[in-house]
Amino acid sequence: MSLTIGVDVGGTKVAAGVVDEHGAIVEKIKRATPAARPDDTADVIADAVLELLSRHTVAAVGIGAAGFVDETRSIVLFAPNLAWRDEQVKKRVEERIGRTVIVENDANAAAWAETRLGAARGQQDVVMITVGTGIGAGIVLDGRLYRGRWGSAGEPGHYRVVPDGRLCGCGNRGCWEQYASGNALVAEARDLARRAPGAAARLLQLGGGTAEGIDGPAVTQAAREGDAGALSCFEIVGGWLGHGLADLAAILDPGCFVIGGGVSEAGGMLLGPARVTFESNLTGRTHREFAEIRLAELGPDAGLIGAADLARLPG
Amino acid sequence: MSLTIGVDVGGTKVAAGVVDEHGAIVEKIKRATPAARPDDTADVIADAVLELLSRHTVAAVGIGAAGFVDETRSIVLFAPNLAWRDEQVKKRVEERIGRTVIVENDANAAAWAETRLGAARGQQDVVMITVGTGIGAGIVLDGRLYRGRWGSAGEPGHYRVVPDGRLCGCGNRGCWEQYASGNALVAEARDLARRAPGAAARLLQLGGGTAEGIDGPAVTQAAREGDAGALSCFEIVGGWLGHGLADLAAILDPGCFVIGGGVSEAGGMLLGPARVTFESNLTGRTHREFAEIRLAELGPDAGLIGAADLARLPG
Repeated sequence: MSLTIGVDVGGTKVAAGVVDEHGAIVEKIKRATPAARPDDTADVIADAVLELLSRHTVAAVGIGAAGFVDETRSIVLFAPNLAWRDEQVKKRVEERIGRTVIVENDANAAAWAETRLGAARGQQDVVMITVGTGIGAGIVLDGRLYRGRWGSAGEPGHYRVVPDGRLCGCGNRGCWEQYASGNALVAEARDLARRAPGAAARLLQLGGGTAEGIDGPAVTQAAREGDAGALSCFEIVGGWLGHGLADLAAILDPGCFVIGGGVSEAGGMLLGPARVTFESNLTGRTHREFAEIRLAELGPDAGLIGAADLARLPG
Repeated sequence: MSLTIGVDVGGTKVAAGVVDEHGAIVEKIKRATPAARPDDTADVIADAVLELLSRHTVAAVGIGAAGFVDETRSIVLFAPNLAWRDEQVKKRVEERIGRTVIVENDANAAAWAETRLGAARGQQDVVMITVGTGIGAGIVLDGRLYRGRWGSAGEPGHYRVVPDGRLCGCGNRGCWEQYASGNALVAEARDLARRAPGAAARLLQLGGGTAEGIDGPAVTQAAREGDAGALSCFEIVGGWLGHGLADLAAILDPGCFVIGGGVSEAGGMLLGPARVTFESNLTGRTHREFAEIRLAELGPDAGLIGAADLARLPG
């Protein structure tokens, strides 16, 4: 049995795990992310890896990080929720642990995991969309993780779906993630509560009486109960999701989309409207096959598992 | 010297050429396309190839066709300007000429030619956009032509840039090619002539006095003369082109875009505004490199040359 270590570095926590070649996690440990100082972050990653190395014989180490990773898989160019700017993550961690590591964007790592070991097993051309607070994505083409010329491929969350649309954290307007994310779901629910409180009675109740109190889990809970207002929010956000998938299919024609992230836990309430919109808007739809749209299978560990699996690959 | 034959099958003409390994065309012949009957089209292709075979020793034959080609490179699923519907083009032509052929989408073939032998020589990740009446495209990733799960990748002309936007021939609304194509350029010029004839005096003159008389070459000619109205049309269409390139870069992060097609003959008048809009709208632009935006070099023969070169490749 060959084991590798995968590390998932997010804005709030670092998770490190020992993973076997089938994607099973043998041991996992978590640490809070000290996001303010780059050195502290590298220290925490190294400490977690060294702790695992003290107990397991491991062939390689991979790090998945929430940020732009350069084409050499060494440097995090920018991480919105960490202090890393042009940070030599590979070098810093290697110095501390005395072993080679690879660094990968976390959404890329998750897409790789779902393709190799999860919902898209056996597929060659896969786009994974992680619907959380924003939208993350990873692209596998012809059976290989596609990273782009400078490592920045797979950011469809920031393609423009509405000219002069909603302001995005990236500085642009109208980005897809402003319409098809967890933030968008909550914005729709709060908007409903403000403009049509009668249609949002259950949502308001779950939000403690105010529109601002409504959060993502509240919308999902109300929708699960069959609340029409909450379901309409999923219809809207799922519709935007499906529209984006149709756009991505026009460009990439994948065999399969995998939808993960916290919002995907709503299952069919999100994927139902997404599929309908996808199939009714795909260009050339009378002359082609429809890509499958599947729920992710590996959950929040996908990034960790993918980083561990990528560490196995040559160069 | 190794020669191959490339055939470019368009809605109005079939061009067949003998091409050397550097992309030089040794001999080229043209025929009118009998688009109404599938058998006639295959006959014309076969006749042209047989004529070339009678004069040259050739290693392989590739056909580039304006339509959706399936993933086995055998069947044209749909061709908007030909009678082909689920047409066994490979089989029909092979029966007639007694040799193996490969079939490729013409925009894919052109993208391959520009990457191997034209404007993007030496690049690994290239998106070619052909700006003609509509928008065609081909995608080369990691040095290989990317075709998608079912052969339909590379149709960004039909991703949606404006919700509920202009009606497109594909049946959807708001497709990119309705905003960044030759048709869009002419539509802008005619709109200007109707709404602000004083600003379109030169355009109207070139159009024989009516808005409907203004065509693409007229807009290009007026813009070349420095006419402000015509230049404003290029600003608008070039801006939409650049916006689309920014969206494609968010998804694919290519090293280079190649812009070809009839409208690209306007050169900097189109590419200038496209570059400005691209660079000012690319997501994460302060943390990444900008892809180059280059003019195509191989002109209208790119599809023929690319089909000939693709025919050299194994499987």
